[in-house]
Amino acid sequence: MGAGSWGTIFAKILADADTPVTMWARREEVARSVNEEHRNREYFPDLVLPQGVRATTDAHVALSDADLVVFAIPSQSLRTNLPEWRRHFVAKSDQGPGTTLLSLMKGVELGTLKRMSEVIVEISGLPADQVAIVTGPNLAPEIAMEQPTASVVACTDHARAVAVQEAVTTSYFRPYTDTDVIGCELGGAIKNVIALAYGMASGLGLGDNTKATLITRGLAEATRLGVHLGADAATFAGLAGLGDLVATCSSPLSRNHTFGKQLGLGRDLAQAQAITKQTAEGVKSCRSIRGLAASVGVEMPICEQIERVCYEGVSPKQVVAELMARQTKPEKELAQV
Amino acid sequence: MGAGSWGTIFAKILADADTPVTMWARREEVARSVNEEHRNREYFPDLVLPQGVRATTDAHVALSDADLVVFAIPSQSLRTNLPEWRRHFVAKSDQGPGTTLLSLMKGVELGTLKRMSEVIVEISGLPADQVAIVTGPNLAPEIAMEQPTASVVACTDHARAVAVQEAVTTSYFRPYTDTDVIGCELGGAIKNVIALAYGMASGLGLGDNTKATLITRGLAEATRLGVHLGADAATFAGLAGLGDLVATCSSPLSRNHTFGKQLGLGRDLAQAQAITKQTAEGVKSCRSIRGLAASVGVEMPICEQIERVCYEGVSPKQVVAELMARQTKPEKELAQV
Repeated sequence: MGAGSWGTIFAKILADADTPVTMWARREEVARSVNEEHRNREYFPDLVLPQGVRATTDAHVALSDADLVVFAIPSQSLRTNLPEWRRHFVAKSDQGPGTTLLSLMKGVELGTLKRMSEVIVEISGLPADQVAIVTGPNLAPEIAMEQPTASVVACTDHARAVAVQEAVTTSYFRPYTDTDVIGCELGGAIKNVIALAYGMASGLGLGDNTKATLITRGLAEATRLGVHLGADAATFAGLAGLGDLVATCSSPLSRNHTFGKQLGLGRDLAQAQAITKQTAEGVKSCRSIRGLAASVGVEMPICEQIERVCYEGVSPKQVVAELMARQTKPEKELAQV
Repeated sequence: MGAGSWGTIFAKILADADTPVTMWARREEVARSVNEEHRNREYFPDLVLPQGVRATTDAHVALSDADLVVFAIPSQSLRTNLPEWRRHFVAKSDQGPGTTLLSLMKGVELGTLKRMSEVIVEISGLPADQVAIVTGPNLAPEIAMEQPTASVVACTDHARAVAVQEAVTTSYFRPYTDTDVIGCELGGAIKNVIALAYGMASGLGLGDNTKATLITRGLAEATRLGVHLGADAATFAGLAGLGDLVATCSSPLSRNHTFGKQLGLGRDLAQAQAITKQTAEGVKSCRSIRGLAASVGVEMPICEQIERVCYEGVSPKQVVAELMARQTKPEKELAQV
């Protein structure tokens, strides 16, 4: 469900893993180009998709009899879209495992402060162990080129995670399983905010010492929040935490990095949006993540400063200076704040 | 003790923190240019050093009455140099804390498999709590430009770590303290090997997904070894582990990254050495770290593969393919191997 960058490449992965796939696209021209030319002209004009990838604009065609439903739409639009799709979702029974709902989305819903899998559980009415997520250092344009990529499939039901893993393993895409859905999902959401900070530091002309410190402190605050919300600290040290964060920060292909860089160069939110032709997920997520942090009393200095830049007009320069100038106490005490 | 890149910049930091410093240089022309022109022409031709930095080629002049002795020589040459310096080191007494011996060196001694601080303790005869280390995401050329940099001062004696911290805190250099010397030192040594692997991946044209996975797995194997040797796992998630690793891998200024890249481009060890005009520390460290790992029965697949490239003529391409193709099992089981 969704024919954007990651949705399109995930359809390729499924087809390359011999899993038949019908992609739902919102727009007719996208569906037509996939069916007629085996291309998604908008996102990957040069990539020929496998024959096994079909597309439709009719959600019901895409969903009927699907064992695995993959969501790859903008995270803040999930709640609006789900209700009309849910009648196709089958709860598990003695006869079988029911529909697996798989989220590729990274974010925390504004207002409710729910993770994507929680929104899916709430609206689908299915139990949480039918909902899985895929996350990790997975820049879609690199997977499009079949660069070797490791990934994580997380589900509280280990057997279901293994089934998804089997449906998406190819020579270039290697998913590992995990049962810590909370940690994997939070890692993916928070990394977008840290990547904004990293991009800002780039835009300000700061070097790799500063940027490595931002990554380190960013992962520490993500871990702190995760542990308070029931996640396993080890998840943040793995592909879904550190791996995804490093890939997103390093890559010039990352939207959050690019967007943050524009802010670091002195543009405001609207200008950055105009230049990059999109709003970075982290701009929304910094608010919802700060909300989550406040709900459990965890300090997240980097997310806080990013919110100040995005919504209070504070300059990136001032913010980075404040982050680097925090009191010089034992590092591990700092990590526990 | 040592007027190389990091030694020179550390002298600048000390002087900028109002700590008087005499730098020992092996070569007369280096000492002369520091004293007469306030420059180290060889490493930083454009940098004017603070007036407080003096230099000498006479170790005894540098060492006499020093409260703090900073070692910044190649790690494999420490054992040869220390004996003639040790008569200047004063053990602590009721009257004072004695000489603090501070290592900036990152490596594990070939043969003995000792960390640098262990070699210092062995040869100096001073107790371990008089020996401290500085480590972290500290690329010297960026500190030379006074880019904001965080660092770690580790010593089993917390009060001594705080004293060193005070002696080296400036507006651009902010050290945090830690008491986990083992973890901080191993983090710094292993990161050089992982940076070689990262450089190889760059040379092979692999993308940020693969490289982020190498960083994640590399940190996992470093942590695994550290914990087996008595370190705190949290150290590896901090500036001395993750921070240093990310800075070294990201930076085009890093020797190990550059050296690994040449290997990835198909050069052999001798050619890479000729092109980069030096041997990267990781080329030596991969052997000693593998030795340490074997001594406690820990698997370190990345270090193992790097050793095969450096000493067994195996191609980087084959090695990276093998690393990415490891069995797709639960990620955390993999982490425990």
